[in-house]
Amino acid sequence: MAGSSFGTIFKLSSFGESHGVALGGVIDGCPPGIMIDLQKVQNDLNRRKPGQSSFVTERKEADEVVFLSGLFEGKTTGTPIGFTIQNKDHKSKDYSHIKDSYRPSHADFTYDKKYGVRDYRGGGRSSARETVCRVVAGAIAKQVLSAIAVQFSTYVIQIGDVQYNSSSFYEQEQIDASPLRCPSDKVANSMEKELVDCKAEGDTLGGIIQCVVRNVPIGLGEPVFDKLHADLGKAMLSINAVKGFEYGSGFSAVSMKGSAHNDIFDATEKTKTNHSGGIQGGISNGMPIVCRVAFKPVATIMKNQETINSKGAKVSIEGKGRHDVCVVPRAVPIVEAMAALTILDHFLRQKTNQI
Amino acid sequence: MAGSSFGTIFKLSSFGESHGVALGGVIDGCPPGIMIDLQKVQNDLNRRKPGQSSFVTERKEADEVVFLSGLFEGKTTGTPIGFTIQNKDHKSKDYSHIKDSYRPSHADFTYDKKYGVRDYRGGGRSSARETVCRVVAGAIAKQVLSAIAVQFSTYVIQIGDVQYNSSSFYEQEQIDASPLRCPSDKVANSMEKELVDCKAEGDTLGGIIQCVVRNVPIGLGEPVFDKLHADLGKAMLSINAVKGFEYGSGFSAVSMKGSAHNDIFDATEKTKTNHSGGIQGGISNGMPIVCRVAFKPVATIMKNQETINSKGAKVSIEGKGRHDVCVVPRAVPIVEAMAALTILDHFLRQKTNQI
Amino acid sequence: MAGSSFGTIFKLSSFGESHGVALGGVIDGCPPGIMIDLQKVQNDLNRRKPGQSSFVTERKEADEVVFLSGLFEGKTTGTPIGFTIQNKDHKSKDYSHIKDSYRPSHADFTYDKKYGVRDYRGGGRSSARETVCRVVAGAIAKQVLSAIAVQFSTYVIQIGDVQYNSSSFYEQEQIDASPLRCPSDKVANSMEKELVDCKAEGDTLGGIIQCVVRNVPIGLGEPVFDKLHADLGKAMLSINAVKGFEYGSGFSAVSMKGSAHNDIFDATEKTKTNHSGGIQGGISNGMPIVCRVAFKPVATIMKNQETINSKGAKVSIEGKGRHDVCVVPRAVPIVEAMAALTILDHFLRQKTNQI
Amino acid sequence: MAGSSFGTIFKLSSFGESHGVALGGVIDGCPPGIMIDLQKVQNDLNRRKPGQSSFVTERKEADEVVFLSGLFEGKTTGTPIGFTIQNKDHKSKDYSHIKDSYRPSHADFTYDKKYGVRDYRGGGRSSARETVCRVVAGAIAKQVLSAIAVQFSTYVIQIGDVQYNSSSFYEQEQIDASPLRCPSDKVANSMEKELVDCKAEGDTLGGIIQCVVRNVPIGLGEPVFDKLHADLGKAMLSINAVKGFEYGSGFSAVSMKGSAHNDIFDATEKTKTNHSGGIQGGISNGMPIVCRVAFKPVATIMKNQETINSKGAKVSIEGKGRHDVCVVPRAVPIVEAMAALTILDHFLRQKTNQI
Repeated sequence: MAGSSFGTIFKLSSFGESHGVALGGVIDGCPPGIMIDLQKVQNDLNRRKPGQSSFVTERKEADEVVFLSGLFEGKTTGTPIGFTIQNKDHKSKDYSHIKDSYRPSHADFTYDKKYGVRDYRGGGRSSARETVCRVVAGAIAKQVLSAIAVQFSTYVIQIGDVQYNSSSFYEQEQIDASPLRCPSDKVANSMEKELVDCKAEGDTLGGIIQCVVRNVPIGLGEPVFDKLHADLGKAMLSINAVKGFEYGSGFSAVSMKGSAHNDIFDATEKTKTNHSGGIQGGISNGMPIVCRVAFKPVATIMKNQETINSKGAKVSIEGKGRHDVCVVPRAVPIVEAMAALTILDHFLRQKTNQI
Repeated sequence: MAGSSFGTIFKLSSFGESHGVALGGVIDGCPPGIMIDLQKVQNDLNRRKPGQSSFVTERKEADEVVFLSGLFEGKTTGTPIGFTIQNKDHKSKDYSHIKDSYRPSHADFTYDKKYGVRDYRGGGRSSARETVCRVVAGAIAKQVLSAIAVQFSTYVIQIGDVQYNSSSFYEQEQIDASPLRCPSDKVANSMEKELVDCKAEGDTLGGIIQCVVRNVPIGLGEPVFDKLHADLGKAMLSINAVKGFEYGSGFSAVSMKGSAHNDIFDATEKTKTNHSGGIQGGISNGMPIVCRVAFKPVATIMKNQETINSKGAKVSIEGKGRHDVCVVPRAVPIVEAMAALTILDHFLRQKTNQI
Repeated sequence: MAGSSFGTIFKLSSFGESHGVALGGVIDGCPPGIMIDLQKVQNDLNRRKPGQSSFVTERKEADEVVFLSGLFEGKTTGTPIGFTIQNKDHKSKDYSHIKDSYRPSHADFTYDKKYGVRDYRGGGRSSARETVCRVVAGAIAKQVLSAIAVQFSTYVIQIGDVQYNSSSFYEQEQIDASPLRCPSDKVANSMEKELVDCKAEGDTLGGIIQCVVRNVPIGLGEPVFDKLHADLGKAMLSINAVKGFEYGSGFSAVSMKGSAHNDIFDATEKTKTNHSGGIQGGISNGMPIVCRVAFKPVATIMKNQETINSKGAKVSIEGKGRHDVCVVPRAVPIVEAMAALTILDHFLRQKTNQI
Repeated sequence: MAGSSFGTIFKLSSFGESHGVALGGVIDGCPPGIMIDLQKVQNDLNRRKPGQSSFVTERKEADEVVFLSGLFEGKTTGTPIGFTIQNKDHKSKDYSHIKDSYRPSHADFTYDKKYGVRDYRGGGRSSARETVCRVVAGAIAKQVLSAIAVQFSTYVIQIGDVQYNSSSFYEQEQIDASPLRCPSDKVANSMEKELVDCKAEGDTLGGIIQCVVRNVPIGLGEPVFDKLHADLGKAMLSINAVKGFEYGSGFSAVSMKGSAHNDIFDATEKTKTNHSGGIQGGISNGMPIVCRVAFKPVATIMKNQETINSKGAKVSIEGKGRHDVCVVPRAVPIVEAMAALTILDHFLRQKTNQI
């Protein structure tokens, strides 16, 4: 009820603040007997971590995951998988200047009002650092799903005004060839240019991440309230800084006519187009699932801003320290993790639809 | 787990097929002692029902709700509120031609694959007729919320290519002045013209509904996975034909810079802009909540379409019968109901954050 | 959260007051394609209903269940099964004398304090009439379970001081041969004699029901908090008037030594004794599940009692009207229903433990 | 769904095997602003830990809890509280002899059948060592509840055949005066004698623990399925080795008449007797809550036993090592923890019953 759990059968319960002792979580409901490659989990964490390029914060977080239970002789046992990631690079002093101020478009104000108390260091629980736990659980989920051939391709299709128009499936190598995680060299270069300019201004940019999932079994998703895309939408919207979600034709469907939008079946039970984004009536139809997630520009900027403090007095926030110009490339493994958690959960739910 | 429940504390569990005996539901967790005006519930159902204009299906559904429990001497008692809506206008014969065919971009194919059996009459459980139960529960939720002054303004801002650019709060009278539920006469007229042309072609159109909620208490929404906008997004994406969701600046945030996007506080703890859409860090901040929901064009068109049947053979679906050219105006009370269910649920959740 | 739902995958959400319009419920998560014999459902309701013998209330409740959805051409479709049971025999006048008084050991006082409002007619939601919905859902669950050969034998083993010492599996015909639902003629006769005396005094008696379930698949039950017997215990303790629950050796285990209590395996993976009651470490082990449920004597007696009213003043409650001397025989189908709901739910949960 | 979570609002999700790296958990939904005395948490752990007397295992577990999040400047913040307890005293070699054998009346057989894989070291997840996490969460819950004056008195009332007949509230000092945690010196001495004899035989004994809770607010517990005693029952039955649960008059109610069993109100809204055990209609009535929990004798005995291995072959298990003669005194803080978790959860649930 307090919002720190995700999933119904394959369920992650996470904990941890940006500058506390550690973050971590419990994964309950992981099927037994699955061999887990721990290095792959660490690799996903590394893709999320700061310091990978000049556009992201240089904070040196080790982000090393330690597993405490639920694995035995390399395999899942069906019992809960506990894990922690220590916070090694605290530097709490950095944040003393915002202890009492409400940073614009952050969660400082709302946390204070909601709880009456707040761990102000680095945003505490509201920090995007929380997403390390999602990445760990998602990396486990992907390994379970790979046993039934489900594959993910997640990449950046827009930063600021620079767009990449594609809904293809790209291999991770191609995506990671650019630090911006856009599979087109050319577009990645334009994005980079945009970011260089933006950084020089001390400003920030948002973007859009697309996730393509193939080989999803037909029949996943529960009708009415737990449609597959509704749960995918919730999953993505729960990531820090996300402002919108669409799947298949998305918002562009609005200006299409029904005759053009309908996906016509071919003789193999596939459809000739995929405006449905792989989901019809809330249930996967065997076509690739395609969805897009919109991120706002990072709220922390290198410019001074007027704001108020907890007494309601006007104060000024100085733009300083180390921060992302654009968080979107680092968010790629987070989006992929949330997609994996959602799809695996629905895969396990569908098992209960037969005796 | 099978997806027919919504909410955690104020919880709706619904049932019913398009052409079964009745639809209905159970609302559990409604606080006791609230006087309920049953006519207001019926009014919302009437706003959803077919036959209100020449652009929506003429099927004469009575849509009369009967309450079976949970109310005593006009007030809620805190015990579950059971209700039913009989299906009076079956005409099951109309659907015999699609018994075995998979209509393009409907849920026929996916239901058959998921369950191995299907009530094919009028789409069965996948029919949008299911939303009557949401409207009933939402109408109750709105009356509970009105006791704490929360108010809703939900209206159409786009049909096909015709857009209305506003994020204001309009009274329901103004919204309902046009059957298209767009508060601008002028824009409504343009929309109407677009629909007349579309109907003549036997085609269909989608649109966008905006929901503005004011006086939402500060502090609603749970951090991390159950952010207020994540639950709103899931609520909206679970409505039939919805393809996308955004709140505040939404997808347009992507091409804004952080310095322009940040909402600066004024001295009254309000913000000068509302790109946050009333939600920061997943928690309501006291500003109006603003979100938008994109609907695809109706899949049932008055044109013949090629498709396959359950044996994989090619068949043709004839366009005939009575159907909506555009479902969006009728969806306004559904969107509002889902917003009310989500906000009331989070209001009650927030009560558990203090002893 | 408000307590009107039971189960996680196969889930019943019920509603209804003793003297409202109707009781009913929604069963979500029933697997599709199961042929349901509606007469068997009605038969279980008839076994629960009043007026079957001279020891139970003569109120003539029709208790006729009507199914509204989720069934098509005789089979479950996987979508929610909605049902209602009308209240035909209201006679609300009977209850006006207790409108404002708190009957001893009833829920009048606690409901008033909890909700501040109460449907006082016949106990409202706190009436055992609520259990009709459990019996309907349990009857569906038993039919699903019968497809995998699970069988139930539920009977009375104690009324007042008269005990029947057995943990065998009896057919329903033998159990129902006596209106007291004790499979031994001789013991049933003694029970009957005890009840005749008790009725003459205007007093009431409690009893114990035993439920034996055979052919339960090995492996049902989730470790730690959702042990199979913990969920069975909750299921039984949620029935009106239940004061205790035990399984296998139960409370008698306390005075046994470990060497005598341990169940030794034979060569067929069965155990030579069944002190474990078919459950080890919270998980079914293939032996018959055996549990016992203790019911207190009915609180409504045919004697005058002192009590207080809602203003705290002393008042007297007159013993009159029609009431059960002993509710235990009528509770047999309720106990069996709760066992079936619990076991089916865990059967479906166990399906998620493999990919 | 996989059973490692307890509670709905104040929710514990636990993890950990007997001989893994660590055990731990996440407590979500703890109200903010509560000062937590960490030493009190450790004290409860110390009361549970082995090596406190000659009748319990001498394994030296440090059982030191480390908190990782959710606390700031000594207070809860409303965000999840993560914690771990390292396993320092592994000695996995001790268990190699049972790697492949199914110990009688343990969970070895059922885990193997359920999961197909098992961490056999010390019982893995099925070990009662899992209960350290319950004690940690319960100790937090008790501190939250003490802010509203709720108090617990939990003690041993039976070991083997030696009973103590009382339902009074005793202070912890008096309870802990004897290592057997029976508040009567005299009875504790008899219990001790019984245990000395039993130990000499290499055998084990069970017992009964009683929990008395006073100052519970009126109105806690949700009608129908989530009655307060139903959730208490589930809580207790989920503890390792528990075979039965009763509250108030419990099983003894069966041989009482209604006129004797009914609790008559006095003029202060209290009742003259407390056969209801503080709960009427599933809702607390302001009288002390009284419940009893029956534990079977420990399954590990110091005698050789015949059994089978995973190939179905007959094998012998040698009685050796260090084990409890009677686990019941050590289970006192576990029972109290489960009572606290249940009551706090219902206290928070009740907050949602008003706007």
